[in-house]
Amino acid sequence: MDDDDFRRGRPSLHKAFGEATAILAGDALLTLAFEILAAPLMTRVHRPDTLLAVISELARAAGARGLIAGQVADIMCEGKTVDARTVDHIVRNKTAALIKASLTCGARLAGGTREQIDILGRFGEDLGIAFQIRDDLLDLEGDAGRLGKAVGKDEQRGKATYPNLLGKEQARSLMQGLVGGAVKSVRVLGDKSEPLALIGEYVGKRVN
Amino acid sequence: MDDDDFRRGRPSLHKAFGEATAILAGDALLTLAFEILAAPLMTRVHRPDTLLAVISELARAAGARGLIAGQVADIMCEGKTVDARTVDHIVRNKTAALIKASLTCGARLAGGTREQIDILGRFGEDLGIAFQIRDDLLDLEGDAGRLGKAVGKDEQRGKATYPNLLGKEQARSLMQGLVGGAVKSVRVLGDKSEPLALIGEYVGKRVN
Repeated sequence: MDDDDFRRGRPSLHKAFGEATAILAGDALLTLAFEILAAPLMTRVHRPDTLLAVISELARAAGARGLIAGQVADIMCEGKTVDARTVDHIVRNKTAALIKASLTCGARLAGGTREQIDILGRFGEDLGIAFQIRDDLLDLEGDAGRLGKAVGKDEQRGKATYPNLLGKEQARSLMQGLVGGAVKSVRVLGDKSEPLALIGEYVGKRVN
Repeated sequence: MDDDDFRRGRPSLHKAFGEATAILAGDALLTLAFEILAAPLMTRVHRPDTLLAVISELARAAGARGLIAGQVADIMCEGKTVDARTVDHIVRNKTAALIKASLTCGARLAGGTREQIDILGRFGEDLGIAFQIRDDLLDLEGDAGRLGKAVGKDEQRGKATYPNLLGKEQARSLMQGLVGGAVKSVRVLGDKSEPLALIGEYVGKRVN
């Protein structure tokens, strides 16, 4: 979608195999997620109504009221002056919605309580926003060799990002606040949440 | 995928709104199908295990072992010499799989017996293959104005179609045989099958 030639130092899919195949690979993986959730293997382990709730939640997060809404807004806002509400809408949907759903769906399948699911959902959403801000900061100040992709593209294209809206320092503070809050809140769940807390801290510091 | 500029006389989606938006629209609709099948409205009317079976069947038909397998093979065979087995694989997957699933999924949700589901599935598969052959014949001999899209593209590109493999007359016979068989077999289900029989006859005669 951003037409980058490289990802993690390797040619991006559409560069290596052509656009049609890249689009079909995306469609195939999207469809596979639902095929797996409805597969007999899953129905032998999980309650049918839990699986349907997970499918519904995943589809909503990935669809036109979630990830796709954010992606469309992201494209439409290129080169335009936007306010904080618009940037929040974009980041919350294009990045955070699916990260949030990966946590709440996992929690549902593991038999989490309503409260545990909610805590994990908020953790995923805050961490998703932080992840996107870190991504946008790396595009501004990261090392192309280390990142394995081109940098400086967001500024060139006038993308609606927090660093472009607030400046780098304020965006960094916002990110650090989100990471700190997310890590603190998930630790409420006890020792088992420690891997998530560590992932949270990594998101705030990653360099590629 | 075939990069046509027109569909039914109107600009195709990627021409009217750009490639990124067209890809996202496809992803959104694909996701929406699963969102609807798992929605609370459906779970109030249908048994959860029926809905999961339908989601599984639809995902399989639309995914990498169905429609996408056919579409990838179709692209990879462009300009190559192919045999009947390959053309059968392409047509059965890229076109017939999803038409078949639309019938079997409907039959499942309506509480059809195993036998009724099987009859409708075979009808859908044969009619899907016939639909594709008719489509390929129209590309060879149809009227661009009436079709609302360019013609003659399959021959130019060396597409793996039945008319290109067998010649127009043999492909037409194959199609008529499939339609005749499909219509006859679906009528076994009684008066209620008459609309399907009429759709079958239409598929064999359509000019756009």
